[in-house]
Amino acid sequence: MPPKKTQAREKLLEAARDVIRAKGFSATSVDDLCRTAGVTKGAFFHHFHSKEEIGVEAAKFWADTTSVLFANAPYHAPADPFERLIAYLEFRKELLAGDVPDFTCLVGTMVQETYDSAPAIREACHATITGHAMTLVDDIQDAMDACGVTGTTAESLALHTQAVLQGAFILAKARGSAGIAADTIDHLIRYIRLLFAKPVPEGMPQ
Amino acid sequence: MPPKKTQAREKLLEAARDVIRAKGFSATSVDDLCRTAGVTKGAFFHHFHSKEEIGVEAAKFWADTTSVLFANAPYHAPADPFERLIAYLEFRKELLAGDVPDFTCLVGTMVQETYDSAPAIREACHATITGHAMTLVDDIQDAMDACGVTGTTAESLALHTQAVLQGAFILAKARGSAGIAADTIDHLIRYIRLLFAKPVPEGMPQ
Repeated sequence: MPPKKTQAREKLLEAARDVIRAKGFSATSVDDLCRTAGVTKGAFFHHFHSKEEIGVEAAKFWADTTSVLFANAPYHAPADPFERLIAYLEFRKELLAGDVPDFTCLVGTMVQETYDSAPAIREACHATITGHAMTLVDDIQDAMDACGVTGTTAESLALHTQAVLQGAFILAKARGSAGIAADTIDHLIRYIRLLFAKPVPEGMPQ
Repeated sequence: MPPKKTQAREKLLEAARDVIRAKGFSATSVDDLCRTAGVTKGAFFHHFHSKEEIGVEAAKFWADTTSVLFANAPYHAPADPFERLIAYLEFRKELLAGDVPDFTCLVGTMVQETYDSAPAIREACHATITGHAMTLVDDIQDAMDACGVTGTTAESLALHTQAVLQGAFILAKARGSAGIAADTIDHLIRYIRLLFAKPVPEGMPQ
């Protein structure tokens, strides 16, 4: 029995998430997506007018699904906003599990190749990256106020955390392993500890 | 008159550098490269067996040409190794000129989409990123020794600088402008000043 239409749409979005993370947007064909999702081409074109449209919708699906993951993650537990920020970055290290396609970022991958050729995808990726960064701004601002940090803004630092994560994924892809991504997140944690003048723990991993 | 064969190879490598930076590796066809280079398909296949092969050779060409650029850049002038490191990062900000495809990284772009499907390209990109990072290690080590910095290694910090640059390019692509890349390099400069306990200048741009 063929999957119901609403199921087909979600299966296609999950397929887009997984196939594009593994081989990029341009190398992914509509046939790849149908095969991975187990749906017909007719079902694909019932839900999406084009590959570009599923790219845009996949970015939104990524934003929606990762938002739930982050909203329910334990890093919000500490009472202190600085400690919540550090816990967020430690959580990002915990997410570096499995194979490289499992932990790297769909929207960073898509925007890398489509930023000039597919403005709608670029815009959806931009909204996703910026939207996630903005979830950190209140904690960063509260921590900056509490610690008297000046010389930057909460928005700028929030975006910097995302730049470091995106760069960490590229080095992990180049090396074929997650260790180097964890190292670069550790440098970010050390930066934030130094900026907020909180002691860097002895023997902090590199 | 058709270009000479050695010219054809270089024109194809320049075309690969420019077209792949604009639209990614998978979206770039051999026809695109021939058209941009102004050479025949026969000339292409005289020099390269496949698109994958020109991907590998383009990464090496990128390493060779950017090595010359960096070797001759003015950031080597300061007598103090810490100041040379800061001058290097300021130079990376100066390179953020022109349109996004003009200042972003060929090998970061290629490895983002080909890391799993084209191991030879992944390896060439990895060698290029790591090779460039290693040109910073002596200065970082000397500065660490002079300032008594512990808790990390010169290699780890050198790789972190490249992760931040790669992430900066992704955010610039998502936003469609260079300003956010300069902001994230400024955070990296601030991190390095704090790590080496050098005063962060008042009014340092964010």
